[in-house]
Amino acid sequence: VTGTEALGIDIGGTKLAAGRVDADGTVLARARRDTPASDAGAIVAAVADLVDDLGGAELPVGVGAAGLVGPDGEVRYAPNLALTGVPLRRQLADRLGSRVVVDNDANVAAWGEFRCGAARDAGASMVMLTIGTGVGGGLVLDGRLVRGAGGLAAEFGHMVVSAGGPRCGCGNLGCLEALASGTAIGRTAAAAVAAGRVPAGSSLHDLPALTGKSVTTAAEAGDEAALAVLAEVGRWLGVGIASLVNALDPEVVVIGGGAMQAGELLLAPARAAAEEHLLGRLHRALPPVVPAELGDDAGVVGAALLALAA
Amino acid sequence: VTGTEALGIDIGGTKLAAGRVDADGTVLARARRDTPASDAGAIVAAVADLVDDLGGAELPVGVGAAGLVGPDGEVRYAPNLALTGVPLRRQLADRLGSRVVVDNDANVAAWGEFRCGAARDAGASMVMLTIGTGVGGGLVLDGRLVRGAGGLAAEFGHMVVSAGGPRCGCGNLGCLEALASGTAIGRTAAAAVAAGRVPAGSSLHDLPALTGKSVTTAAEAGDEAALAVLAEVGRWLGVGIASLVNALDPEVVVIGGGAMQAGELLLAPARAAAEEHLLGRLHRALPPVVPAELGDDAGVVGAALLALAA
Repeated sequence: VTGTEALGIDIGGTKLAAGRVDADGTVLARARRDTPASDAGAIVAAVADLVDDLGGAELPVGVGAAGLVGPDGEVRYAPNLALTGVPLRRQLADRLGSRVVVDNDANVAAWGEFRCGAARDAGASMVMLTIGTGVGGGLVLDGRLVRGAGGLAAEFGHMVVSAGGPRCGCGNLGCLEALASGTAIGRTAAAAVAAGRVPAGSSLHDLPALTGKSVTTAAEAGDEAALAVLAEVGRWLGVGIASLVNALDPEVVVIGGGAMQAGELLLAPARAAAEEHLLGRLHRALPPVVPAELGDDAGVVGAALLALAA
Repeated sequence: VTGTEALGIDIGGTKLAAGRVDADGTVLARARRDTPASDAGAIVAAVADLVDDLGGAELPVGVGAAGLVGPDGEVRYAPNLALTGVPLRRQLADRLGSRVVVDNDANVAAWGEFRCGAARDAGASMVMLTIGTGVGGGLVLDGRLVRGAGGLAAEFGHMVVSAGGPRCGCGNLGCLEALASGTAIGRTAAAAVAAGRVPAGSSLHDLPALTGKSVTTAAEAGDEAALAVLAEVGRWLGVGIASLVNALDPEVVVIGGGAMQAGELLLAPARAAAEEHLLGRLHRALPPVVPAELGDDAGVVGAALLALAA
């Protein structure tokens, strides 16, 4: 069996998702558990339980963890997990007795989309943006995941696109994440309401909370003000995409994350704005900007494929 | 001799610079000619003459050309050279009978700095920004030059850092190049004068033209208003550096180009602004931001080393 299957484990702030995955990226079996909040030992034990659940005792294990992961598989910093400073790869390898690789969760998800998802036919390079509460990123160049000198590459949400603009969760002003995220959809809608730019009949006035999800649902029902909010946020996403394409010239741009519930309502204005900001647009085309395909499986699939390739 | 020396040729809009270079990047001999404006055949002939001048008939030849160069060494687009659409690598190889590589001029200069200049001890990754009339870029990751899918990577000057900001030469608004270039130094000084923010005694009132060079010279002489202009432009440079470090996590950032005559007058405010905008600045350090070392030799050295490695 070794060499044709692996386990992929996605360690998030609230849940552990695991899957037994073959070399084509097909998920053959799934398991999940809540993420222990207590300590690293409990997380390692829960991962070992998941390996048992999936009958994967002899298989290589790939892990994606929500945090900063060094090239040695040590978790340097994890704001939402009890793993800061933990040599997770070594602890898991000792516990499981099998080959283990550990990487950042956004990196493994990007690898899943690159190998088996939206970028599988793209060639050798991909920029991925994950638009959720925040903005995550993943980068593949020359067929390889770019991790950066300290494991911190691809934090595309914190490129400054509007210096002096709205406050980002990171503390700075005008980051892409502050303008093109699920959070930004809610904030942009609230600003439109506060500025009196939302007509009386709009459902935005009636929503209990203005969030990425509620505004998107209103837009899908045809609310013009909600559509305008998604178009504005989509255009900011497009500015970020253009900056990345000008800097990296990838073969494809993949957009995932919860905000992609809005689909083309975000992507169409994003593509239009990206084309306007593309350097040399008379001499080249914007690469395809496409939705992610693997959804919640991206991390599990990518982690397993990284383990198989290790 | 083959294997230990190569020729490097830098094809710019006004001059052809050539050098015979050893494997350590030492320039053993130099030659230069004006760039023929007429046609590609004249440029190929001038390169052949330079090869003769340097006695390099049997040596591999590396060429950096100011334009968009495909992976096949065809010049796809060159706004300032009679080379658009010319299969330059093949034409030179036919003419010279030796091994020839052709790449973009900013890429070969970055390779020179990476191998033998300011980044020679950095490790495997480098972001380079060349601050001149415009802003050029070069990128090395995993020890390899990043060219992009269509040879267009590393156009860092056209990342948007201030959407809706000043008009860039590319036609867009708020590109890094519009805020942090030699041109931007002149424009920022002119704006300060026009806004009445420059005291009566400042030499900025007396300069025949406000350019990157003249403002820098005034700043070096201690003119406070000129120093403030460089600090403002330097801070924009820092915003761009932070965006690049957040996106790519390189081991070193190298800043070259004519505007670096200003040295620390630009680099110190750039580092300060980059540190403010660095993601996770409590858990990491800004990588070194250092001046380029090879000056006008960077292209010649980098092109020769690329040819040696090919």
